[in-house]
Amino acid sequence: MSDQQGKRIVLAERPEGMPTDQHLKLESMSVPSPADGQMLLRTIYLSLDPYMRGRMSAAKSYAKPVEIGDPMEGGTVCEVVESKLDGYRPGDVVLARIGWQTHGLSDGEGVRKLDPQQAPITTALGVMGMPGFTAYAGLLELGQPKAGETVVVSAASGAVGQVVGQIAKLKGCRVVGIAGNDEKCAYVRDDLGFDAAVNYKKDDFEKALAEACPDGIDVYFENVAGKVLSAVYPLFNEFSRMPVCGLIAYYNMTGTPEGPDQLPGFMRTVLTKRLMVRGFIQFDFAPLMPRFLEDMSGWIRDGKVRYKEDVVQGLENAVSSFQGLLEGRNFGKLIIQVGEDPTQG
Amino acid sequence: MSDQQGKRIVLAERPEGMPTDQHLKLESMSVPSPADGQMLLRTIYLSLDPYMRGRMSAAKSYAKPVEIGDPMEGGTVCEVVESKLDGYRPGDVVLARIGWQTHGLSDGEGVRKLDPQQAPITTALGVMGMPGFTAYAGLLELGQPKAGETVVVSAASGAVGQVVGQIAKLKGCRVVGIAGNDEKCAYVRDDLGFDAAVNYKKDDFEKALAEACPDGIDVYFENVAGKVLSAVYPLFNEFSRMPVCGLIAYYNMTGTPEGPDQLPGFMRTVLTKRLMVRGFIQFDFAPLMPRFLEDMSGWIRDGKVRYKEDVVQGLENAVSSFQGLLEGRNFGKLIIQVGEDPTQG
Repeated sequence: MSDQQGKRIVLAERPEGMPTDQHLKLESMSVPSPADGQMLLRTIYLSLDPYMRGRMSAAKSYAKPVEIGDPMEGGTVCEVVESKLDGYRPGDVVLARIGWQTHGLSDGEGVRKLDPQQAPITTALGVMGMPGFTAYAGLLELGQPKAGETVVVSAASGAVGQVVGQIAKLKGCRVVGIAGNDEKCAYVRDDLGFDAAVNYKKDDFEKALAEACPDGIDVYFENVAGKVLSAVYPLFNEFSRMPVCGLIAYYNMTGTPEGPDQLPGFMRTVLTKRLMVRGFIQFDFAPLMPRFLEDMSGWIRDGKVRYKEDVVQGLENAVSSFQGLLEGRNFGKLIIQVGEDPTQG
Repeated sequence: MSDQQGKRIVLAERPEGMPTDQHLKLESMSVPSPADGQMLLRTIYLSLDPYMRGRMSAAKSYAKPVEIGDPMEGGTVCEVVESKLDGYRPGDVVLARIGWQTHGLSDGEGVRKLDPQQAPITTALGVMGMPGFTAYAGLLELGQPKAGETVVVSAASGAVGQVVGQIAKLKGCRVVGIAGNDEKCAYVRDDLGFDAAVNYKKDDFEKALAEACPDGIDVYFENVAGKVLSAVYPLFNEFSRMPVCGLIAYYNMTGTPEGPDQLPGFMRTVLTKRLMVRGFIQFDFAPLMPRFLEDMSGWIRDGKVRYKEDVVQGLENAVSSFQGLLEGRNFGKLIIQVGEDPTQG
């Protein structure tokens, strides 16, 4: 340990419902020193993503929960401060997963060096990173959109949704975004080129969605569920596909919700429309990562894919920002700037 | 028209909930005479299948509903009485779809001649017919069972379920059947060779199902839904598959049922287990029919697939038998014998 002080946010208690600073506690820590084969990383940017809510619960899921007392997990863009690891030098900028803290040690596993000349380093947490890859793999491998089909995506202005819609446009589809306010709807329609966007908080949401999908829905990329799913499923065409990426509407739900029971209506659609529903997590598609990086860097370079980031200053704002993410208050890929960015003027 | 009188059951009124003889009316009719290019068929056996409940409702589904006043649809094994159609002679036994009536005309479309020497003619309505093909296509194409995996099937002693389980055994799987009484459970376990069978009407059903699936569930062939589905889905393994063939528990449901809402729990399983759910109807797989007929006739000849039929005498008993089918009171493939079987004694 050095004398230098850092900060971190640990999981103090498992939340039921919305996590607060009772569950996620900001605390001081001594900055550790690297042993041989390790390096000390300083966090520049921390990615906040909806999947983190799952890691706070003890329930069985596709990844192990964070242990009580441990720092919360998360993808980070870091600067190497001190290195006793071959191939890394102080000043290098890397993509790592040191979590919700200002400093952390790494043995290099799962770390990737970033070239700030090639793309802004924040994009490694968004459009060129896990969320972008999630959109790419889920839409193309499971959604299998064909030119002329209608693709609907929920949380449309979010880190994943904005990429899903733009790739679907590149594939020649009619793209309809669903988002939670008019500003987000205007953004995906006017700035990203979606054909239509519908605000799910408006009273006429179901009617507006149906009008935005005059030929029905062939692919629904699910990030949200809840009332959005209830409005979507009656519009499915025969042989439609529904990749299930996230269920934000349920993440803070405690217990089994009251009725009416939506499962029979959903299953009737599955049967009569021969709907294909498939949950996924991006790491199931890891072999596609090189193809993704090549395709996506090309699309960004050619201006075919654009992106929006929502950068919040300070680790101390991570908990309230995460709450906002679960409630849809962010606008674009949510990133916490934890420390100084050496690539910025 | 000849002077001969026949009988038929027409859809007099669309049922809400369980259909009765108020909705399905038995009436007399004059037996029609064939025009050139037609033949007159006499029904020997009528197949009763759960899908018919869907045809009684006006709701949009994968097939058009039966019109009010028309005879109910259905697959039949018939004898040719009179033929003005090349290739068919009086006495020929054919698979046709003349519906719930003693006589009907056919122009030969969709008709297949049966060879009573090769297999009992009733099997064309069951194990060698639509239900057998449904089992074959849904299990193999969508369920994709691998040796050593656990396959669960509901309505396990029914026309489709009994075939699903036996094919899964042939593929080297552990097979667990779910049925509604102990006699059916004993049949699929002791006579058909399933590894285990569980009675869903018992109080300890959920526990018994979990015990019968110590390694979880990899494939669930859905015929029923309702409380059976609720017990199944917590047991799914990662990357499991759920072909959705039928939803008998919902067929007589009116309106949206009260809570609790099961959709969030089901969708959580879809996401965290990367479950694949896919509705289907056998005619989507029509190109596989020749391979099915070859495989299935071989399996039956070699004693690898057995079958059970539940033959009820008399068209006048079709309505009560159909009610029994929706309530699980039949035992094996339900068939109505409408007229004399010339291949018997």
